[in-house]
Amino acid sequence: MTSELGAFFNRVRPAIDATLGELLPPDTAPPPRIHEAMRYSTLDGGKRIRPCLCVAAFAAYKDDWRPILPIASAVEMIHSYSLIHDDLPAMDDDDFRRGKPSCHKEFGEAIAILAGDALLTRAFEVLARSKDLPSERVLRAMSVLAGAAGSSGGRIAGQVLDIEAEGARVTEEQLEGIHRSKTGALIGAAVWIGAYLGGAPEQDLACIKTYGDRIGLAFQVIDDILDAIDGKDRDQEKATYPALHGVEKSRAIAHHLMEGARQALTPLANRAALLMDFCDYLEARTS
Amino acid sequence: MTSELGAFFNRVRPAIDATLGELLPPDTAPPPRIHEAMRYSTLDGGKRIRPCLCVAAFAAYKDDWRPILPIASAVEMIHSYSLIHDDLPAMDDDDFRRGKPSCHKEFGEAIAILAGDALLTRAFEVLARSKDLPSERVLRAMSVLAGAAGSSGGRIAGQVLDIEAEGARVTEEQLEGIHRSKTGALIGAAVWIGAYLGGAPEQDLACIKTYGDRIGLAFQVIDDILDAIDGKDRDQEKATYPALHGVEKSRAIAHHLMEGARQALTPLANRAALLMDFCDYLEARTS
Repeated sequence: MTSELGAFFNRVRPAIDATLGELLPPDTAPPPRIHEAMRYSTLDGGKRIRPCLCVAAFAAYKDDWRPILPIASAVEMIHSYSLIHDDLPAMDDDDFRRGKPSCHKEFGEAIAILAGDALLTRAFEVLARSKDLPSERVLRAMSVLAGAAGSSGGRIAGQVLDIEAEGARVTEEQLEGIHRSKTGALIGAAVWIGAYLGGAPEQDLACIKTYGDRIGLAFQVIDDILDAIDGKDRDQEKATYPALHGVEKSRAIAHHLMEGARQALTPLANRAALLMDFCDYLEARTS
Repeated sequence: MTSELGAFFNRVRPAIDATLGELLPPDTAPPPRIHEAMRYSTLDGGKRIRPCLCVAAFAAYKDDWRPILPIASAVEMIHSYSLIHDDLPAMDDDDFRRGKPSCHKEFGEAIAILAGDALLTRAFEVLARSKDLPSERVLRAMSVLAGAAGSSGGRIAGQVLDIEAEGARVTEEQLEGIHRSKTGALIGAAVWIGAYLGGAPEQDLACIKTYGDRIGLAFQVIDDILDAIDGKDRDQEKATYPALHGVEKSRAIAHHLMEGARQALTPLANRAALLMDFCDYLEARTS
């Protein structure tokens, strides 16, 4: 990690955590149990990749990045809701998440379903209440984010495809489609809305879109590689890059995608230095 | 039902159904199964009370009510998502909904959870894409709607309280709190955002708010009475008005609430004629 990116994380991660802590209802607010569950699953020391990318893209165009914090935090709430619902017994049936019991193991299934629903709802409420950014732009950002989270090419589409692919043979093309929608879309949207709300001109947004799509897919390939090294996913016959290509070729694919992401940023020159650093940072996780 | 309200339903219900049909992805759009489930649970000939109230409140201020149709339909999507999730085995465990198998019985639990998530997400996407209404007003309407659907005094809070109350003794005050948040909040929000987006002045909005709160609570009391007459809810030891007060006193409570709702509309005079008719229409269901 470059020292610039390290300094960025040191400032932005605590700011995201503090914003999330303020935007989520306190766990004493009635009914307490649902708010405990929302906070349990969101304020758990995650790496905050999505909101950090959102802030970094905003910061490429605005010196003061504080106005984007609520929106970046809303992106993290959407991510957190998706993890809670994906972990449910009817879905991936995961008992653990980030080293502690998953939401439904800790609070029961009913509260876990409702906590996911509430995080998704709260994310859009936070977006709707953004006061420091132009209304038209906020609406367009919400539309892009909802699309990336939704059932047509977004996160929900990816989860459906992923469930349907379990135990089945998938082609490389199908696998790419699953990863692009399940993980890539929300990461791409986080970057795009950061730059867009920062006031990036149209030609920059096109570069940012390509960058976001490529790191989004690369992120999932890298996640699959890490899981393969850890021995996860094998039993479940999940559709993954290492299962299809082996770990070494998957690393090469991730590297190729990251090279493409870096290339997409070239026209933005120094403005994109921090986003460029993210490529190295994310890729370094697998080596 | 008055002939005016009858004529209104005859025009608005098909318009709502048509708008929902257009706004939901076709059931051929990939991945088809999730879109089949979303359409199965939403395009099922419901009475469309919430979107009709939203359109009626808008129509009190604007002759052409077509611009509110997407937003009224988004309210119905939120209602539909909440029914899908409430019916899940971990929640109310209902196998039937409106005379056909509930979503999880027809499509499986995983798809039902995701179809609910997708309807909620799509509702906010539709709101974010409203082009015919001022952006600032759309954002405030979204914020009110998200609050009414959420975990602090909204629908999700009500569902949590309802689950926690099952089999327990509840006071009248607690029961009112459950109903206000579980059902009243979304109905109240539907009416309020209709009037607000129609351009109602602040003093009218205060009356509309009181009206919406009262019919929202009355609606749930009436629903409980209908269920009690049908013999539902008794086995589950649900917290209801008839369980606490008996059917006759519950009817009197509903009537008292409806009287209060009518009274709240008095300052709006003729402008509120259609909203006034809703009181009689909703109350007539129990007699």
